[in-house]
Amino acid sequence: MVEVSERVRNIGFSPMRKLLPFAEKAKSEGVQIFHLNIGQPDIPTPTPYFDALKRYDGADSNRVDEYVKSQGLDELRKAFVEYTKLTVEGIDDMTIDNCLITEGGSEALSNLSYVLFEPGDKIVVPEPFYANYNTFMGVNDVEIVPCTTDIRENFSLRNIVSEIKRIVSEDKKVKGILITNPGNPTGGVYTAEELDEIARIVKDNDLWLIADEVYREIVFDGENPRSVLSIKSIRENTIVVDSVSKKWSACGARVGAIFTYNESVLENFLKLLQSRLSASRVNQEASAAMIDADVSILKKRANGHNEPTSVELARDEYSRRRKAAYEILKKHGILCGYPKGALYLIAEIGEKDGIPIDAEDFCRFMLEEFRVDGKTVMVTAAESFYKTPGKGKNQIRLAFVLNEEKTKEATEILCKGIEAYKNK
Amino acid sequence: MVEVSERVRNIGFSPMRKLLPFAEKAKSEGVQIFHLNIGQPDIPTPTPYFDALKRYDGADSNRVDEYVKSQGLDELRKAFVEYTKLTVEGIDDMTIDNCLITEGGSEALSNLSYVLFEPGDKIVVPEPFYANYNTFMGVNDVEIVPCTTDIRENFSLRNIVSEIKRIVSEDKKVKGILITNPGNPTGGVYTAEELDEIARIVKDNDLWLIADEVYREIVFDGENPRSVLSIKSIRENTIVVDSVSKKWSACGARVGAIFTYNESVLENFLKLLQSRLSASRVNQEASAAMIDADVSILKKRANGHNEPTSVELARDEYSRRRKAAYEILKKHGILCGYPKGALYLIAEIGEKDGIPIDAEDFCRFMLEEFRVDGKTVMVTAAESFYKTPGKGKNQIRLAFVLNEEKTKEATEILCKGIEAYKNK
Repeated sequence: MVEVSERVRNIGFSPMRKLLPFAEKAKSEGVQIFHLNIGQPDIPTPTPYFDALKRYDGADSNRVDEYVKSQGLDELRKAFVEYTKLTVEGIDDMTIDNCLITEGGSEALSNLSYVLFEPGDKIVVPEPFYANYNTFMGVNDVEIVPCTTDIRENFSLRNIVSEIKRIVSEDKKVKGILITNPGNPTGGVYTAEELDEIARIVKDNDLWLIADEVYREIVFDGENPRSVLSIKSIRENTIVVDSVSKKWSACGARVGAIFTYNESVLENFLKLLQSRLSASRVNQEASAAMIDADVSILKKRANGHNEPTSVELARDEYSRRRKAAYEILKKHGILCGYPKGALYLIAEIGEKDGIPIDAEDFCRFMLEEFRVDGKTVMVTAAESFYKTPGKGKNQIRLAFVLNEEKTKEATEILCKGIEAYKNK
Repeated sequence: MVEVSERVRNIGFSPMRKLLPFAEKAKSEGVQIFHLNIGQPDIPTPTPYFDALKRYDGADSNRVDEYVKSQGLDELRKAFVEYTKLTVEGIDDMTIDNCLITEGGSEALSNLSYVLFEPGDKIVVPEPFYANYNTFMGVNDVEIVPCTTDIRENFSLRNIVSEIKRIVSEDKKVKGILITNPGNPTGGVYTAEELDEIARIVKDNDLWLIADEVYREIVFDGENPRSVLSIKSIRENTIVVDSVSKKWSACGARVGAIFTYNESVLENFLKLLQSRLSASRVNQEASAAMIDADVSILKKRANGHNEPTSVELARDEYSRRRKAAYEILKKHGILCGYPKGALYLIAEIGEKDGIPIDAEDFCRFMLEEFRVDGKTVMVTAAESFYKTPGKGKNQIRLAFVLNEEKTKEATEILCKGIEAYKNK
């Protein structure tokens, strides 16, 4: 019988799949599950988004839901570029021609795999990393070379710079570096010095640099958002991926973008966008309105206005949730990263009988056995964010997608669950 | 300097690109252009679509525009499957598990390239064919083997069946056949006998059959829609691509789907959908409402109600436009296909000084020089729909995307333009 392709057969199923039946069973028994396992924020999408949907009456108020040009709606590109210029330093010369709209960050990343790499090429990615990179690269037969960052060093890039240098200089099949900043699943935010180090490697070895910056403005403790778009020396090598999903809590819009100064990338990326004709229209119109509202606020800031943008409000909310979860974990003596951005945290749940705990088994335990007043917590086993075999086995990822109070309650339950698991 | 990938570099730019500057120049001079060159219908998207957008208030009326599960919204899958069962014979056992929602037919086709084929595999496609198949297959290094159908045989499949048989039996790298039915750019609709012939080849050689049926219900002259889903002998080999774009005139929704009984295809295709998390939500909600409205109408038909569906109204409108254009072309002695479905027609514009006319030069002539009362017509040179070098050079494609009156006026101008070009 005719068979599906080997490359797709080799792609793993979502690791969630194994745990879902346990979650469903618990729910059917009336257990309340706090879902810290998914990246779906609970923060309302800004009102201008819904207002634009209500106003929508066809492409040209003509009652026809027409294709958008393949580059994306100009109003959206304009809004996205303006917003980016107002929040990132040193890119005053950027125009809408430097921006192409994609179906979420996902389409941007999978297209970049085809546009930048030949099958058999390799790309260095600091791990732990967003697991879907494996599919985006794997379908095009591009091999991810992981460089492991350490939870004890708060997943800092500093310690792996020399390893990246070594790999890049020794293996000529390596054609690029992919970073996520701020990081999913780590919550790490790279320093200017770390980004400069990466830029030097990119420049010296003439590599592609893909920066997934979909959480860029979600940085805490008063830090300013930082983008590799600001690094002029590697402008031709750099492509930044952005999205409205997390910052504006509009995951269902599937509106993303690439930003680059490289004309050849823009031109060739566009060919792939043209082959699928158009991204969806109404989501682009609604996203443009939503981003424009934040652009207006940022512009008024020069005149002393202090109104926060939607993204800043979301950032502050995530910051509070992060602080709450982090402090509870610390109080219980649980080793974890200190998230400086994004909406995630990695915790190491330790050993049982002298052996590192299998986090997947722990997740199952939480869903199957552990209850506090009829409640439990679902988290993600972090192993799937590592490519190096054996890494991250006793780590879990928490997402700050519940409000502060619920995050607190869920984290307390989690800590009690870790204790119970160790003692069972 | 680091360079983009060879495969993407080798993809051609949209052929439209060359003509656009001429169209823009004409417009700037006040010339009115009838655009018969694009597949963007002017028919209003059904009202339930816009109504659903207005009602939308977040995933769960919770003001959060959330991800949809990767398979697609269940309401949409249910509506799409019900509609398909009501319009296609012999698929009463189909459930929503046989349907996965994609970002338009485009995402369905590009994913099928990765799921079904290894790089280096080949696929037979009757030509002329939809030009973007070249990109969907080319990015995955799948080679399209074209089998040329003839305008003089109304692009019938009958005459190329033996050639397909020969190619498939001689070249073991051929792993599939891709048909578009009804056809873009031909307007051809395959007979039950032709489809049975294809099915036999698919069965005998254990091939994949991809059927792009995005125009399925747009069939004229009282014909019933026909789908390869009805052919039970090749159920495991068959994947049908569908979309709301043309039938419901909702191109901007980017809502498509695959339908198949093959469990392995469903399972592996889903992996690619999971890697991009979700298709856009609100378009799925609106499309579900729109399809449901037609489902309700079809169900009432058993009770003798005669109200037409949105798709049937669109079909009848395209039928009138087609009749108008066809008759005018015939009156002027221009050879053309007789479209039995879809919204396109191919015409052969003949010779000038004993040499076949270069249709691209003719298109430029229309935009640059030819005017009737300050009006002209833009059509597509059909060469880009052929893969065999030299084929279709003097053919053009017309799309029925203007109302009957405008289609008539545009076709008259076109015929005068052909005459003028020959005599200049």
